[in-house]
Amino acid sequence: MDDGDLPRQAANHVPLSPISFLLRAARIYPHRTAVVHGARRYTYAEMAERSRRLASALRRAGVGAGDVVAIMAPNTPEMLEAHYGVPMAGAVLLTINIRLDGPAIGFILRHSKAKFLLVDREFTKVVRGAVPEGLPVVDIVDSEAPAGEPLSDQDYEAFLAGGDPAAAIHTPADEWEAISLSYTSGTTGNPKGVVAHHRGAYLNATANALAFTLTPRSVYLWTLPMFHCNGWTYTWAVTLQGGTHVCLRRVEPGAIFAAIAEHGVTHMCAAPIVLTLLIHAPEEQKRRFDHAVAIATGGAAPPSPVIAQMEAMGFSVTHLYGLTECYGPATICLWQPGLDEMPLDAKAAFMARQGVNHPMLEEAAVLDAATMVPVPMDGRTLGEVMLRGNTVMKGYLRNPDANEAAFAGGWFHTGDLGVMHPDGYIEVKDRAKDIVISGGENISTLEVEEVLYAHPGIMEAAVVAEPDGKWGEVPHAFVTPKPGGPPPSEAEVIAWCRGRLAHFKCPKRVSFGPLPKTSTGKIQKFELRGRLRPV
Amino acid sequence: MDDGDLPRQAANHVPLSPISFLLRAARIYPHRTAVVHGARRYTYAEMAERSRRLASALRRAGVGAGDVVAIMAPNTPEMLEAHYGVPMAGAVLLTINIRLDGPAIGFILRHSKAKFLLVDREFTKVVRGAVPEGLPVVDIVDSEAPAGEPLSDQDYEAFLAGGDPAAAIHTPADEWEAISLSYTSGTTGNPKGVVAHHRGAYLNATANALAFTLTPRSVYLWTLPMFHCNGWTYTWAVTLQGGTHVCLRRVEPGAIFAAIAEHGVTHMCAAPIVLTLLIHAPEEQKRRFDHAVAIATGGAAPPSPVIAQMEAMGFSVTHLYGLTECYGPATICLWQPGLDEMPLDAKAAFMARQGVNHPMLEEAAVLDAATMVPVPMDGRTLGEVMLRGNTVMKGYLRNPDANEAAFAGGWFHTGDLGVMHPDGYIEVKDRAKDIVISGGENISTLEVEEVLYAHPGIMEAAVVAEPDGKWGEVPHAFVTPKPGGPPPSEAEVIAWCRGRLAHFKCPKRVSFGPLPKTSTGKIQKFELRGRLRPV
Repeated sequence: MDDGDLPRQAANHVPLSPISFLLRAARIYPHRTAVVHGARRYTYAEMAERSRRLASALRRAGVGAGDVVAIMAPNTPEMLEAHYGVPMAGAVLLTINIRLDGPAIGFILRHSKAKFLLVDREFTKVVRGAVPEGLPVVDIVDSEAPAGEPLSDQDYEAFLAGGDPAAAIHTPADEWEAISLSYTSGTTGNPKGVVAHHRGAYLNATANALAFTLTPRSVYLWTLPMFHCNGWTYTWAVTLQGGTHVCLRRVEPGAIFAAIAEHGVTHMCAAPIVLTLLIHAPEEQKRRFDHAVAIATGGAAPPSPVIAQMEAMGFSVTHLYGLTECYGPATICLWQPGLDEMPLDAKAAFMARQGVNHPMLEEAAVLDAATMVPVPMDGRTLGEVMLRGNTVMKGYLRNPDANEAAFAGGWFHTGDLGVMHPDGYIEVKDRAKDIVISGGENISTLEVEEVLYAHPGIMEAAVVAEPDGKWGEVPHAFVTPKPGGPPPSEAEVIAWCRGRLAHFKCPKRVSFGPLPKTSTGKIQKFELRGRLRPV
Repeated sequence: MDDGDLPRQAANHVPLSPISFLLRAARIYPHRTAVVHGARRYTYAEMAERSRRLASALRRAGVGAGDVVAIMAPNTPEMLEAHYGVPMAGAVLLTINIRLDGPAIGFILRHSKAKFLLVDREFTKVVRGAVPEGLPVVDIVDSEAPAGEPLSDQDYEAFLAGGDPAAAIHTPADEWEAISLSYTSGTTGNPKGVVAHHRGAYLNATANALAFTLTPRSVYLWTLPMFHCNGWTYTWAVTLQGGTHVCLRRVEPGAIFAAIAEHGVTHMCAAPIVLTLLIHAPEEQKRRFDHAVAIATGGAAPPSPVIAQMEAMGFSVTHLYGLTECYGPATICLWQPGLDEMPLDAKAAFMARQGVNHPMLEEAAVLDAATMVPVPMDGRTLGEVMLRGNTVMKGYLRNPDANEAAFAGGWFHTGDLGVMHPDGYIEVKDRAKDIVISGGENISTLEVEEVLYAHPGIMEAAVVAEPDGKWGEVPHAFVTPKPGGPPPSEAEVIAWCRGRLAHFKCPKRVSFGPLPKTSTGKIQKFELRGRLRPV
């Protein structure tokens, strides 16, 4: 068909960008509550106006197209506005993990060549020594937080007031243009800067809205940090459907239960650690609610007892899997016919799987990393989880070696080891670097942890490899007992495992105490391994 | 940020195409029922296999990249398969309206330069004389239909058997590549060929899934013809979520109610005429169902009494608006806070509006066609409804003049006249060519029809301009009385309107009888105008 006379033009082609979501929401839901934060409320008209002011103020302050604008803030309205205002200025949004220390922040600001910094007053103290000479800073002063110490003589509201909401905004000429930059919290070495583009952000947000069934009636609670892969792109997905964002500075069970009840929260996302927090919340903080609350969790596989207890509390749990490199969620443990009728235990075990690719990721597979051939669909053969599609990052910033390795063979290599079940569902067994190899046998530490979490006296558990003269490595369990009851003994824990696992998989030793966590709530296995290394 | 070293590559860039939806559904829902048709059932694995066989068989029959493959069939599994198999062959799918006559079919086959024709046996008779010399034809024999008369010596199942489901499939190298071709049922002159591309099909299907809340649990009933803008892209949208397609050869109220009850239908789309059909169905055909059935309607504004009666019967009605040129739906009369609490009448009046742009259309506006300036948001000032975004067609095939007019000024010109309400909702008042201009005043025929539909003795109504020596034009009403009761008189109908409308807007004359319809169920106003022209 010779239709070569039909070019792209203004009427029928617009580069995909999440900026469009806010412009549309402001047009069709101008009076709807877009953002709730303590006593503050913004409608979509106001959210758009504030974002446009931010864009204009940044341009007037000298920020140019492609410049990096950094922000360090918890889940506040300003953080949301930055997700629109910064791209509307043609700039790239760098969200800094609020739990980092000065040297790490300094590295990120220098490596990214950031041209501007927005910082919430809570973090001015830690940031102060890390700000490179000459970097302009604006302080965000949140009426919902303690005063904090000024770093800049300009605060965010005054800065916004200097912007013109009617000024023209930038929209990308090419949807491959960068929209954001996120540094992975690497366990060793310097973090890598993950570059995301407008197309991927648009499509991943869309996939989340589809997979998590966001609608215009949705009320989304910000338990997941927005600095973490742009809040898994829900910063954009909720706006796409014109839902309401409920901000939350601190992830505390009392505040979460109160927000659910007060604002009629319908959706939230959180790491499994937050689920544990909710389950073990003091009874006086727990609230019953008479509506369904969908909670998506990921970042680590939630142990099935955690899923079962959340469901029993009235939450509907969806398990997601992903990485910063793929805009957060990449796979979902998707509903299948028959699932609703399963007993809660079997359902929870199924739902602990990582699942299948979301609707906008082209494919998720488990491949033999050496041959790039899919592993058999037997639920047993280990391979590397690999992803390809439009919701995979543009690449690592100024890191050609890392890019070559990450994209080798036409797939993004996640570094996670998993199996493919006969039904096409992926189950991650371990991080490639976390697996325990004992007497030549692979031991999935997640499998052992699953058994530990089922013990009635255990709240949290992590298993790592301990060097062993005979076996090479043996599993060592680190365990946090449940508060209140008597803690189990080492012998009891080992016996519990032996009753449920092949003996070679059982921990040889058990340590008790709190577990070290990364700033995003993941248990720091490298730290635990360090404790076991001979000094 | 200098990230110029981050090019598109296989791991992170895949041209958008609805082909991906079926490949994913087959992988993650292999055993789920994808298609129901009478006694026939296909799983997603089978649907994908049959579509791949079709692609391979077409290639083996000489169909090349960019060739047009035509199909003339009702809503059957074969029609669905063609929506995947034809693009998988690299070809462009031309769906022919099954109500067209031989000369119209002949024009379309010649103008499109179709290289292959699939035809359901029900239509072999009308097609026979229209097939250009040398065009290869395959007959589709549907076990759920009368035998029909053979046109080809090869039937579809034998043709599929000759295809290899393991053969490589085509996926677009560029998402701007054409995926389908639809001829508009123009009221005058030759129809125009609307070219759709993979990107637009992907995004419009996604927008429909989002706006109509399709989920993996959805069961979609095919009351809307698939030949009509590819079934408003639901051919692809239902598969995107892995829902179930329930086919239906004929739109009959008894069959519709039976399918809803038997298959647990959750979603369907239909022209308002089908809603009228359901409302006026014989009582013995009506079935109550204990689940919610969402019905999207468009193509013409449903009169608010029709919406109210459908809601009373247990359907949840969504009003959409669009054209073949924008893949079917472009705007939705979207839910707003407070709508649920409105009285049914007020709600129905609100819902008769065309609404706001769907999430993947960039913008819908009402502009002064001369200045391209938006009309005031006053709900009164008429302008032309215009659209822009990724879900607007590539253009008309081999028709540069029509393209220039359609895309002038960076917007797609719909030819519909409407107003913009203060809340940002569009209401179409008339087709540009349907408006009645009486004594210099514009009269919206839709407004008059709305009043006529509210009359208890009227089933259908259409108002057109009648030439008048004094006023230039006057409104003339054509009315189909409700079966059963005594028909109203001309004087009664005029009095009814005078009680509810400014007098200059009321019909001066009323004719009674059945209304002529286009093949897609729209009332043919040009035919009615013809009846009023002096011979």
